[in-house]
Order: sequence, then C-alpha cells, then structure tokens
Amino acid sequence: MWPETIKMKKYKNDLYLKALAGESVKRPPVWMMRQAGRYLPEFMAIREKYDFFTRCRTPELAAEITVQPIRRFHMDAAILFSDILVVPQAMNIPFEMKAGIGPFLPQPVRSKKDVDKVIIPDVKESLGYVFDAIKLTKEMLNDEVPLIGFAGSPWTILCYTVQGQGSKTFEKTKEFCFTRPEAAHTLLQKITDTTIAYLREKVKSGVDALQLFDSWGGMLAPDDYREFSWKYLVQIIDALKDEAPVVIFAKGCWYALEEMSDSNVSAIGVDWTLTPQTARKFTGNKITLQGNLDPSRLLSPPKVIKEIVHKMIDDFGKDQYIVNLGHGILPNIPLKNVQAFIDAVKEYHE
Amino acid sequence: MWPETIKMKKYKNDLYLKALAGESVKRPPVWMMRQAGRYLPEFMAIREKYDFFTRCRTPELAAEITVQPIRRFHMDAAILFSDILVVPQAMNIPFEMKAGIGPFLPQPVRSKKDVDKVIIPDVKESLGYVFDAIKLTKEMLNDEVPLIGFAGSPWTILCYTVQGQGSKTFEKTKEFCFTRPEAAHTLLQKITDTTIAYLREKVKSGVDALQLFDSWGGMLAPDDYREFSWKYLVQIIDALKDEAPVVIFAKGCWYALEEMSDSNVSAIGVDWTLTPQTARKFTGNKITLQGNLDPSRLLSPPKVIKEIVHKMIDDFGKDQYIVNLGHGILPNIPLKNVQAFIDAVKEYHE
Repeated sequence: MWPETIKMKKYKNDLYLKALAGESVKRPPVWMMRQAGRYLPEFMAIREKYDFFTRCRTPELAAEITVQPIRRFHMDAAILFSDILVVPQAMNIPFEMKAGIGPFLPQPVRSKKDVDKVIIPDVKESLGYVFDAIKLTKEMLNDEVPLIGFAGSPWTILCYTVQGQGSKTFEKTKEFCFTRPEAAHTLLQKITDTTIAYLREKVKSGVDALQLFDSWGGMLAPDDYREFSWKYLVQIIDALKDEAPVVIFAKGCWYALEEMSDSNVSAIGVDWTLTPQTARKFTGNKITLQGNLDPSRLLSPPKVIKEIVHKMIDDFGKDQYIVNLGHGILPNIPLKNVQAFIDAVKEYHE
Repeated sequence: MWPETIKMKKYKNDLYLKALAGESVKRPPVWMMRQAGRYLPEFMAIREKYDFFTRCRTPELAAEITVQPIRRFHMDAAILFSDILVVPQAMNIPFEMKAGIGPFLPQPVRSKKDVDKVIIPDVKESLGYVFDAIKLTKEMLNDEVPLIGFAGSPWTILCYTVQGQGSKTFEKTKEFCFTRPEAAHTLLQKITDTTIAYLREKVKSGVDALQLFDSWGGMLAPDDYREFSWKYLVQIIDALKDEAPVVIFAKGCWYALEEMSDSNVSAIGVDWTLTPQTARKFTGNKITLQGNLDPSRLLSPPKVIKEIVHKMIDDFGKDQYIVNLGHGILPNIPLKNVQAFIDAVKEYHE
C-alpha cells in the first residue's frame, strides 16, 4: 500500500514507486540488493583509493558509488551507498572495518554499564554526511529513477554491537538477551529511537522510500523474534509510515511474514527459501513483494538466468512485485550475468 | 512409523524407540545433537591428547566419547561419536581438520576429472573402524539405552567437497551445481551409494536407528533442494527403511517438511525457527518430531530453561515426540544448564 499522506513524486521511470503503490505496470521494476558494490570494476577502482568508512562518509564518493550501477545497467531504483553500522557509530559505538574480519568492535557492549555509555545522538550533526550524500545523489540522478534509503534493524545492529563482529550463531548476543533482557531492551530502544530520527532526516533530504534490513532476524525462534526484533521494527514502521513507504526485508524470517503483512509496511522482501506461491500465501495475496532469486543463481549461464527470471515473474505475478535477489549480490558475479538478469526483466511481457 | 520388518530390541530404557514407533509414553525421550563433545570436561581431556580424526578412527576412543554424556546425564539415547566427513575420506577425498578453519580439503573437487577420481569404496575395509566402534560401544552401553548411527546428507558432504571448507554461502558448490549439473549429480550419486553401504553396515554392527544430517540443505531454494539434496536422501531412506528406522534432520528446510512427512522416514528433526504448532501442521500431525530448542537458549538461567522445556513438550505433545535441541549444543554451555535441560524432561508430567 502507498501511504495516503504522501504524494508520489514524478520520475522519468516511476515503475518502482508504482509497484510499491500496487498500481498495474507493464513489467515489474528491478533493482538488486548491494547493487553498488564489489562486482563492479568502477566500484573497485574507488575502493582501491579509499577505505570503507571514507567511502561512506564522503558525500561525493557515496553519491558516485550509488549512481554507478544505474549508469551501467539502468535499474529502476537506486539505493544510497552506506552501511547499517553508521548508526551505532554515531551512538558512541566505535565500529571499525577490519580486513578479513569485516565489522569489528574492540570493546563490545555486554553490560548495563556499557549500555549506559551508548548515546542517542543528534543525527543532523553526527550523520550529516549521509544527508549531504542524498542531496548530491538526487542531483546526479536527475529525476531518472527514485532513490531508496535504508537502515539496519535494531536487532541486527545489536547482533554486531554485542558480539563485536560477524558470527555464525551470534551466541554472545543471544546470551546477553537471554540473561540480561532489561539491558538488551534498553539498548534496542536507543537504537530504535536513533534509527527513527535518522530515517526521518533521510526522507527530508530526498529519499523516496525506506528499506529496513533485518539480516540476522532468522537466527531467532519466532517468540524471540517478536520480543527482540519485530517489536522495534514496528515502532520504526509506525513512526515513518506517513512520511515514506517502508519496505522490510528480514532474511530467514519466513515465520513472521504473516504478521509483517498485517503491519503498516508498503512491501516485504523475501529470501529464496520461499517459492513465489508460498510467499504470496503467507502474506495473504495483499501486499507488494520484493525478491527473491538465490544470489548464487547469477552464477548460472545467462540463458538459464533469463528462463528462471521469467518464471519467477510469472509465479509472483507482474503487479505488486519488485524483482530483486533474495539477498545481496555476491562479489564474484560476472557483469554479463547481471546484464542477463536486468535484461530478462526489461524484456518481460505476459 | 516403526518399520514393519523390524522387531524392536529390548533395552532397560526404550523410550527413544517407543517414541520412534509412535507408542504412547509417560514422558518423551531426550538426547542432544552433539551431546558427546566440547562442553564436557571429560571430552576435553581426551581432546587434549588425540587429534580429531584419531578420535574418530580409534574404536576405544570413539566408544568412550559416545558413552561419556550418558554416564553423566543419562540421556535416553546414545549417538556414536564420529564425523560426516569420514565418508568422503573413504572415497579418496582427503579431508583434514585444520585449527581455526575446521574441515579443509587442499584440492577441492571442481571438475568432471576430479569427480572421476572419486571412488565408491568397500566400506567394510575403509570404514571398519566405525563398525568396531559400534560393537565396542554396544558392549559399554550394556543394554541401557539404544544407539543411534548417523551420516551426512550427500548435499552437505558435496558442500564441503566442492567448497573445500566451511562457508557462509557455499557459492563455489552452488556454482558447480548450476554450471556443471551432470558432474554434480555423478558425485552426489557416488556419495549416495557409499552412504547406503556405510549405513547398512552400521545397522549390521548394532545401531538401532539412523539419523541423516542435512546441515546445509537450507542454503538451497525449494526447487534446487529437491534436485540436489532431497532426491538423494530419498534413495538412502528407501534403501534402508526395512533395516532400521531412519530420522532426517535438515536445518533450515522448513519448506520441505511436508514432502518429508510423506516419505518413509520414521521421524523428522526440526530447527528452532518453527513453533511446535507449525511443525505439527507442516507434517500433517502424523509423524514423530524431534527438536527444537534454540541451542543458545541453554545460556538462559536453569529456571528459565525448565519453563521453556515444559512449554515445548506441552506444545509438541508428549507422544510422537523426542526432545532435542534445534541444532548441535554450543561449546560454551555450562554443565548445570545441560542438567536443567535433561532434568526438565525427566520431571515432566502432564
């Protein structure tokens, strides 16, 4: 559903917004999670010169990286290059990006005392570089396609903040939640409040839609998901629903799809463990869905990719549907395979 | 269902076999995936002296490790200490166990030529140490509780064999399957044939039930799961169904549960992303289920563990149910929490 309070802006290509609004389209829009990234040679050229957080924090670099995939492949939406960890960084949680490890926090948050040190920042001050990047990107996009802004779910940010780095099981985070639930909820609420202010400012700066990523939601049992993740996502969705359409993607959270479809989101992203039929069934055939090709499937020959994509559109239906991958694109995907994926959607007709 | 062709053996404690047979019990049986392992001090003492594959290959060590958790906690079933990778090792795929990495294959299998070098061994010869360990364990168990034998699914073994080590996405394995499906199927069939011979010999040596672990099935989309994993599991299940009850546990494969419940397995293990109600619904209320506490939940205080376990039994129902974790026990679980988990089941009454 499109929020009643918002007037849809005009773009040369407005397929993405129309799909969010549930309007009928001649073909579904397409974009790819992590479309601005490591599979692109022009991105790699920038990466050689500037480290990860410099790329995030320099508006000119973030805007250029955001526009790169659009320039080459003409997806139907751009998504601002940034990282979910800029939010905890602004909250006095000093993440680094460590070679071979990824996000790394020298002193993870693991006690009530640690939680007390975490601040709710003035986002305009501490995350101003993101809003500047949005304004610059909007200029560069020149009304071609809409721009998506994103944030991590409070649970997913908590995962890194307590564990201190990526993990297969995030058992330190779970131990924290299961043994110190009060401290966990205090921290989740601080992340939630910051995220709401952050996304509100993103919308004011010009993004057309908001996507929430809950990358690690699927590590939780359904009851724990409701308590430690969904509860906070609902706060964010409800706070912003009248300011921009909100899309939720929670990897591995098939069990929460029914509840999500009854919330105030405009669309739901699904991963590749669901058939299109199952995804439609779990969400009551009533909401725009986004997804869900297995990212590894882009390693198939281009001819096979096209067949699979056409079948996927047939199975989801061309309306109330945004073609995407079921998770971020892998670094080792050949450009011609990405081209086949995008072309398949653009060539689609009933 | 209990296979019609098999007479149930007598044990002092036969709760596990009764649950597999669907007979009514006063309380459900309990065991834990990876119950013989790193959370136990007596296991760590052995581990300090002998490396991983020495522990697997020395019948006296494997039998001792198998019996250790029974001696301390009196679970209702023992499971033979071994590893899923002893099967590919016997097939001329020389896995090592590397510190900090885990299973490691210096030259992964990635071409038709590599696949041709893989042999279907005489299991009695190359895996005789496993069958000796079973006989020794049976003596040590002294008819107290039944003994479970296990194997990895062909897909899960393929994952390591092609990737060369553990992975978050196993994209090399998927690339192999998606670009060289014939070679992939040839290799999967070789693993399947070896596994059938291996498990048959395990039954002859004395195990009472067979458990198949598909740890990485959940990485596949439903159609790909059917093609690259389930197809081969069905062959194994059907080949052995008249020789022993077969239990399947496929992590992340909630989407395949309905199909599994229509197969010839005697029980199905489920992970913690399913509520008991959903698990019963997906499997048509007709089969014994095993699971499914989030392994991280054993980090909760003992009092909370007991409450959760009692609720779990209430929700699954005490019959046609085997209490277990939703995946292997984590190394950092305190012994008193394991005790609380086992006690909760033994204290259960309606």
